[in-house]
Amino acid sequence: MMVSDTVHRRPGGRSARVREAVLDATIEAIVAGGYAGLTIDDVARRAGVHKTTLYRRWATREAMVLDALLARSATHVAVPDTGTLRGDLVALLRAVAANITSREGRALVMALLLETRGVPGLDALRQEFWSTRFELVAAVVERAIERGELEGTVDAALLVELAIAPLYLRVLVTGEEIDDAFVVAVADHVMTGAGAPPTTLIDP
Amino acid sequence: MMVSDTVHRRPGGRSARVREAVLDATIEAIVAGGYAGLTIDDVARRAGVHKTTLYRRWATREAMVLDALLARSATHVAVPDTGTLRGDLVALLRAVAANITSREGRALVMALLLETRGVPGLDALRQEFWSTRFELVAAVVERAIERGELEGTVDAALLVELAIAPLYLRVLVTGEEIDDAFVVAVADHVMTGAGAPPTTLIDP
Repeated sequence: MMVSDTVHRRPGGRSARVREAVLDATIEAIVAGGYAGLTIDDVARRAGVHKTTLYRRWATREAMVLDALLARSATHVAVPDTGTLRGDLVALLRAVAANITSREGRALVMALLLETRGVPGLDALRQEFWSTRFELVAAVVERAIERGELEGTVDAALLVELAIAPLYLRVLVTGEEIDDAFVVAVADHVMTGAGAPPTTLIDP
Repeated sequence: MMVSDTVHRRPGGRSARVREAVLDATIEAIVAGGYAGLTIDDVARRAGVHKTTLYRRWATREAMVLDALLARSATHVAVPDTGTLRGDLVALLRAVAANITSREGRALVMALLLETRGVPGLDALRQEFWSTRFELVAAVVERAIERGELEGTVDAALLVELAIAPLYLRVLVTGEEIDDAFVVAVADHVMTGAGAPPTTLIDP
């Protein structure tokens, strides 16, 4: 039901709609039963398509899951472009926090995390997912360099990693609440650490 | 066997030896079977003591586990005092990295993490563990303030959180390797973000 609602709102022809339905169904299936239990049959049934459609489009189960995770991140944790580094960092961290504290986002993180060991293809999948995401989000840092807010020598991937890490630490390890003051403090600390001039505390 | 070796090396009377044996046995039991499956019987058997000894010393299973985790952290991730903030941060992060990438340390993190939901007392236990650890490690920041390396307004807990978070992110989420260059880069970034003067890159 969720899937067909989504399909009706989204642009593109039948091929694009089938793709969306399958990617949504893949996420649903992982949330429901974890990664290791994910089957092509289940995804095809949830998406309302024949499983040969899936075999035709994705060479492996991992390739399908990677597409599903990246498509979901593109909408749930979109790369912001607010015009300032601080605005972008705060917007990014708010989206990450909302995602990993949501039922579905948390379930996905846990599913991929719990089944870390001994599941064929999962290490490569995770690596590919994160390198793609870091590359996309690095645009925030690159635009800050272009605007002169950061030196050109800043390591964009490191900066993004330092910015998102405290949110994951709270959700996964310490269990502490993430409030907006924390998000803003992390963004400010990371900016200052990267050599950006200390900001005034105007809400972005 | 490991327990009795340890007991022989440690100072203190019979009471202290029993305590050490029980705390070591508690860690062993969690690593072997997770937190939810932990029983007083199993810990008593592993420690070679009668279970009434455990009931006499610890009011609850959670109190015993908390003591065990804090005792283990005190030795495996000791609070450094090298004389400089950079030296302390790098030493701390090296110890955290060694701990959470070790078989036992990783198993403990996963055991407490996986069983986050629905296990009575575990949320309170984790909160107590982390608030105690953050308080101990804050000494690193307090000494830096006393030496004039940091302003007195620095939030010690936040600084420690920002410093350790990227290590946990790599181990638990992205799966990326932690090398020493990364540890040093994180320490430097966190120091600069906290307003410490940028350091020269002399190995601490």
